[in-house]
Amino acid sequence: MRVSGNPAVISLIELALSEDLSRGDITTEATVSSKATATGDFVAREKIVVCGLDVAAEVCARVGGGELTFSRHIEDGVIANKGDVIATVSGSAALILQAERVSLNFLQRLCGVATQAHTYAQKIVDYPCAVVDTRKTTPGWRYLEKQAVLCGGAKNHRFDLSGGVLIKDNHIAAVGSVADTIVAARKIAPHGLKIEVEVTNEAEFESALSAGADIVLLDNMTPAQVASLVPKAKAKGVVVEVSGGITLETIEDYAKAGADVISSGALTHSVRAVDIGLDFRG
Amino acid sequence: MRVSGNPAVISLIELALSEDLSRGDITTEATVSSKATATGDFVAREKIVVCGLDVAAEVCARVGGGELTFSRHIEDGVIANKGDVIATVSGSAALILQAERVSLNFLQRLCGVATQAHTYAQKIVDYPCAVVDTRKTTPGWRYLEKQAVLCGGAKNHRFDLSGGVLIKDNHIAAVGSVADTIVAARKIAPHGLKIEVEVTNEAEFESALSAGADIVLLDNMTPAQVASLVPKAKAKGVVVEVSGGITLETIEDYAKAGADVISSGALTHSVRAVDIGLDFRG
Amino acid sequence: MRVSGNPAVISLIELALSEDLSRGDITTEATVSSKATATGDFVAREKIVVCGLDVAAEVCARVGGGELTFSRHIEDGVIANKGDVIATVSGSAALILQAERVSLNFLQRLCGVATQAHTYAQKIVDYPCAVVDTRKTTPGWRYLEKQAVLCGGAKNHRFDLSGGVLIKDNHIAAVGSVADTIVAARKIAPHGLKIEVEVTNEAEFESALSAGADIVLLDNMTPAQVASLVPKAKAKGVVVEVSGGITLETIEDYAKAGADVISSGALTHSVRAVDIGLDFRG
Amino acid sequence: MRVSGNPAVISLIELALSEDLSRGDITTEATVSSKATATGDFVAREKIVVCGLDVAAEVCARVGGGELTFSRHIEDGVIANKGDVIATVSGSAALILQAERVSLNFLQRLCGVATQAHTYAQKIVDYPCAVVDTRKTTPGWRYLEKQAVLCGGAKNHRFDLSGGVLIKDNHIAAVGSVADTIVAARKIAPHGLKIEVEVTNEAEFESALSAGADIVLLDNMTPAQVASLVPKAKAKGVVVEVSGGITLETIEDYAKAGADVISSGALTHSVRAVDIGLDFRG
Amino acid sequence: MRVSGNPAVISLIELALSEDLSRGDITTEATVSSKATATGDFVAREKIVVCGLDVAAEVCARVGGGELTFSRHIEDGVIANKGDVIATVSGSAALILQAERVSLNFLQRLCGVATQAHTYAQKIVDYPCAVVDTRKTTPGWRYLEKQAVLCGGAKNHRFDLSGGVLIKDNHIAAVGSVADTIVAARKIAPHGLKIEVEVTNEAEFESALSAGADIVLLDNMTPAQVASLVPKAKAKGVVVEVSGGITLETIEDYAKAGADVISSGALTHSVRAVDIGLDFRG
Amino acid sequence: MRVSGNPAVISLIELALSEDLSRGDITTEATVSSKATATGDFVAREKIVVCGLDVAAEVCARVGGGELTFSRHIEDGVIANKGDVIATVSGSAALILQAERVSLNFLQRLCGVATQAHTYAQKIVDYPCAVVDTRKTTPGWRYLEKQAVLCGGAKNHRFDLSGGVLIKDNHIAAVGSVADTIVAARKIAPHGLKIEVEVTNEAEFESALSAGADIVLLDNMTPAQVASLVPKAKAKGVVVEVSGGITLETIEDYAKAGADVISSGALTHSVRAVDIGLDFRG
Repeated sequence: MRVSGNPAVISLIELALSEDLSRGDITTEATVSSKATATGDFVAREKIVVCGLDVAAEVCARVGGGELTFSRHIEDGVIANKGDVIATVSGSAALILQAERVSLNFLQRLCGVATQAHTYAQKIVDYPCAVVDTRKTTPGWRYLEKQAVLCGGAKNHRFDLSGGVLIKDNHIAAVGSVADTIVAARKIAPHGLKIEVEVTNEAEFESALSAGADIVLLDNMTPAQVASLVPKAKAKGVVVEVSGGITLETIEDYAKAGADVISSGALTHSVRAVDIGLDFRG
Repeated sequence: MRVSGNPAVISLIELALSEDLSRGDITTEATVSSKATATGDFVAREKIVVCGLDVAAEVCARVGGGELTFSRHIEDGVIANKGDVIATVSGSAALILQAERVSLNFLQRLCGVATQAHTYAQKIVDYPCAVVDTRKTTPGWRYLEKQAVLCGGAKNHRFDLSGGVLIKDNHIAAVGSVADTIVAARKIAPHGLKIEVEVTNEAEFESALSAGADIVLLDNMTPAQVASLVPKAKAKGVVVEVSGGITLETIEDYAKAGADVISSGALTHSVRAVDIGLDFRG
Repeated sequence: MRVSGNPAVISLIELALSEDLSRGDITTEATVSSKATATGDFVAREKIVVCGLDVAAEVCARVGGGELTFSRHIEDGVIANKGDVIATVSGSAALILQAERVSLNFLQRLCGVATQAHTYAQKIVDYPCAVVDTRKTTPGWRYLEKQAVLCGGAKNHRFDLSGGVLIKDNHIAAVGSVADTIVAARKIAPHGLKIEVEVTNEAEFESALSAGADIVLLDNMTPAQVASLVPKAKAKGVVVEVSGGITLETIEDYAKAGADVISSGALTHSVRAVDIGLDFRG
Repeated sequence: MRVSGNPAVISLIELALSEDLSRGDITTEATVSSKATATGDFVAREKIVVCGLDVAAEVCARVGGGELTFSRHIEDGVIANKGDVIATVSGSAALILQAERVSLNFLQRLCGVATQAHTYAQKIVDYPCAVVDTRKTTPGWRYLEKQAVLCGGAKNHRFDLSGGVLIKDNHIAAVGSVADTIVAARKIAPHGLKIEVEVTNEAEFESALSAGADIVLLDNMTPAQVASLVPKAKAKGVVVEVSGGITLETIEDYAKAGADVISSGALTHSVRAVDIGLDFRG
Repeated sequence: MRVSGNPAVISLIELALSEDLSRGDITTEATVSSKATATGDFVAREKIVVCGLDVAAEVCARVGGGELTFSRHIEDGVIANKGDVIATVSGSAALILQAERVSLNFLQRLCGVATQAHTYAQKIVDYPCAVVDTRKTTPGWRYLEKQAVLCGGAKNHRFDLSGGVLIKDNHIAAVGSVADTIVAARKIAPHGLKIEVEVTNEAEFESALSAGADIVLLDNMTPAQVASLVPKAKAKGVVVEVSGGITLETIEDYAKAGADVISSGALTHSVRAVDIGLDFRG
Repeated sequence: MRVSGNPAVISLIELALSEDLSRGDITTEATVSSKATATGDFVAREKIVVCGLDVAAEVCARVGGGELTFSRHIEDGVIANKGDVIATVSGSAALILQAERVSLNFLQRLCGVATQAHTYAQKIVDYPCAVVDTRKTTPGWRYLEKQAVLCGGAKNHRFDLSGGVLIKDNHIAAVGSVADTIVAARKIAPHGLKIEVEVTNEAEFESALSAGADIVLLDNMTPAQVASLVPKAKAKGVVVEVSGGITLETIEDYAKAGADVISSGALTHSVRAVDIGLDFRG
């Protein structure tokens, strides 16, 4: 999808432009002629996975109003090495200066998410196991961050509260039993959705399995606990997801323990902005 | 200001609600009665500086539509220790479940920014020096993140491209000399704004000083370099700001070197979400 | 969810108010005192399934600005008989007159969708088969119409292009084979989503089954064709959905043929507004 | 007017894109290369009056972001026969698939309204009488549906509560007499608006006439009743509008009875979506 | 209508809050405790016609977020003398300071329009003639300025391009003759709209009359010219509107000449903001 | 900045289009063929300073949807004499007619502000003194009006409540003393902002000076009073701003008295729309 077809992303871009530019740019307007032209390269200052070029292009198009040209050199999802030029913007020098910070703020975060996702995904690349994101995304950024997770080679969990069924203890308590809760969910949920049940101990795990869950989410268990439960789940064709404080140090242990899916909020909620600069030529 | 008076923040909250809730919540709608009530406590699971309660309250008000009550226990800017209850939401159990994730996503990031700002500020609390943020904020979040920086005890740099004059090499190149650039900026800029000039070496520093800059920004210099330049600036009543890769490890060295202001993009662009949970009572 | 928590619905309500009221109400402003009060009952003039009270309440709240009270008498999803009062609005007579048409336009359509869904659902209530909607909804109305379908006792298909995987001939052609397409989809799709494949003849049906589809969508087949394929699908635990020109006259035949799910665009795209009026008391 | 000049229509298009596309298109993204191209024809599968091409073009432009070309073959207001190609979209295959459903949802409804309006208008084409719409439009769609009514050869009643004066019993009750109500309305209403009064019996009709109404609206009267009143109105140069449960079966009787204008909510509130498909070439 | 029911007005208020407050209020936040309370009176510093209290109330409600109370003392449309308190706001001192400027900016302009309209209307109060506004309103302010014109005792012309038919020379040139143009307009225009034709000389006036115009607009004629044409128009029951450079000095001459309606863009496009202050008590 | 990069300006343009065009243009649609083309010149009918071409161009682009071409002949900030063609629009005659009024409404006000600012600025062009605007702008128009002030050769005061520190009596009262208030403000305010203090008599002036204000605002003082205070301020390097009822007649007296800055709300809140017309060629 082009960013122009996603009004939610356009709204975020408008918020970003509004907060940086909607009162003008005193320094540039005072000093740079509106006739001056320039060319700037977006350069990776460290090794990254590229993501967000559509957004940067849209920022430049809006700030430029027809007077800036944006061209891409490395596509989303591809690795750029230190020093690589990801994209180039050329045209009015003043308008480039005004588009610079917002473009970089988007790129640095989205490449940051993609790069971090890549790091996680590579840790378990040899296992039949996927690392997925969560709904712990930066408010306003869910679509973008989930795309960045895909760019990095990890996968997405459900997009929102309608994109999947995930039964937790509060839901079960409200209905009375796991089995009844699953029945209630199937009655409402679209038939294309599997039913996932979160469990925190073996008793709950057994209940979920016998009640017919399609997926069990093992929350805050050790790799050993996971390894002990996986065979029972697999025997019933039930998918096993694990979550809860899983780090780069421990992720492989969970893959080794047989989990099908490992979910981590850190993929999106605690991200270092990668270093990207806009270098003017000449 | 109440959040309700800031349309940009309201727009971000609407984007956040839209991306998580605008297609419904299949699991909860299928399992939790619309008559059931509950009370949930927002609990700090680690030591944090509180920030973002207005936003969380607004999220609960919108999702609740009059059926949720939000009460605060620890105000923005105050430290909460592990286990402290920051705020409480009560009313419809289903609506609390639907407001939970969005509320937490806002709180965890804003408290994260405030807590990190606090850590930076504490490092130099004994020096006549302030740590300030930059324009490297998360797009859509500038107002909120800058408020969080204040909550943490750090300060803000200019809000946007109109909130201050910051002359960089591209501007000087466009005009021809530092002196002429400062004249050009003063001609346009509101009289309440000081003129700041970024310099990367001693020659530029001298030029900026003799041209009448109000503030010099020493970019990517060592503490030793800074220390050698500060006396000359102070002699002219010029404020000294330093920036460029300053970390928690090095920040005190810059304060010791005599900088008046230390700016760091990391305050806002690379933040760990702090751990906050919503615990249902009984 | 309260309507206030769903910005997309709020936007539609604002569009509706804007198109009817944003230039004022010449007749009422010229003739009805702003001090006059009245009470009006929303009355079903035929037997209907109620839906949309939240929306009508929000319309009255916005037009009323604190001067109108809206109370409900029959909840969403419940049948109202001819003459039943569904809800009552009271307060400023002028404001009631200004809220009347927009409120009714929402209610008449949403109750119309719910009532029609109820008619379809009742036709097959004795079969282990569900009737579901499609993405053929009125642009701007998807959430509301899908909620109305639920109110009427039918079910929802995927909400949007991210809420489920539905592989059609164009997708298969792009990849080359059904099996490879399913693999490609599983690689990207969240693990909570089943894979559905649309087929138009027995050869495609067999391919889908052997390639591991979770759901097959039999498009434009006769009940007899469906009946011949159902056993093979069931043997593999594959869900069977049918679609294509299914009417109130033929729906039972498809349920009888063993389909698990029957989808119909007519549930939402071709609906008669039911007759509801606003009767002023006294 | 181009759709781009009508922010209300743009907002509706954005709602429509948002509800179908703002979380991505899992199936297509997983299976169709972003380099693949295709050409699709919008084909009438029954005889229709065309309407809505501007909207479909705008949908394709936004989803396409410069990578889709939309060309029209039959203009709005013209009849397309079964099998006729109304318009063609070509470019990225993935983007066409993503624009398909939203484009069709708009076209099917708007052509549906135009086609139904045409059917009504044709019934009385030989009489000096016009069929007009009402304010009973789909919320969010008023401009589009009223344009569709014009495309079908029927006419529009007032656009909104400011586009005409229509005095009903509640207004008269508030003021005290028909004559005083008309005076009050003329005092406020722009001088370019005629004064219309709704009457339900002969006594009210006589009052309206002697009080100087420009238009009388005969509500829920039989053709015979209408025929008996028309001469008195015509003698005074007063326009006669009739409304209330008028159907395709009875409309000609009212035209024959001498009504100048026949209004019908069904033109817009109860419409069958016509059958239009998007056929991929090759 | 309450302002809350008019999304266009709400949008303008949001723009106004956004441009003044969306980056915070440094001075007040640094100096005024969030616990301090105050009471401020909106005081007329000259004789004015009051208008805009709904807007000021909404501004205070949004900035206050529940912590400000707004009470009215003189209603819209009523004259306030120098020193009169129009309204009072009380609650958080900081929030009052933040709402002050935006509230006053709205009030000063709207009262300014109402007061100027009052001055114009009073000039011809003894004639059977109305002064009306035009579409020359401040972009974004049409509804508010037209309401202010009514508050001042003048009247409104058509709200927009759909609220009336006004045929000018370009339209006539496009069709070929006045008579044909009127026929074309009647064919499309809602039956509640009169047909107005603009004429600039006697020949055009005669053509418009014989072609059946309901209203003639005499553009840029002297009072003597108007006086010579009025009897011919009246003989046919045609309304006479005059426009073009009519000032407070000349308006009575046109009323005396027999015009029914005098339109003036100056009512809205060239207005002096009246002097209103917010005085803190004690 | 191009207008397309400023979402707040785009929103105002959308409000303007919405209020004039979103219900169509009955007269033009009925009479002018969609195939007819024309060329129209925007002509200054009096001597003006040009401002607002970007906005007019954007209006024409949106209404035109690709079918109108807008070309500029005199740039913003340049004087146009009576009869000069500022810009030209060509293309569909119907679309030009629909864009005409909104374009002119923007241009006439913005050129009006620029022209008035020019008149003020010229009065004191020979003094080392600047005339600046205030926050008394038309709600929704702040950016545009402040740009127009610059076009006219005057300067801007702070953009909003975050763009500068301006301490008034209410702030001082809240803190207790001028000195403490300045300390409090410096503690929060970005280091690039000067501290301005409003004073109304000599005692307050002395306090502000000794407390270290960077700028003093002398409110409602006579030129003689100003002249007596200026030397003391200059001796301390403090900037002197004056405000309060300064008119075209008195402005030079204040410049002569030695004020550095003269601020006037009238620059933006009480402006006469200049006369600009759109003349169709041939």
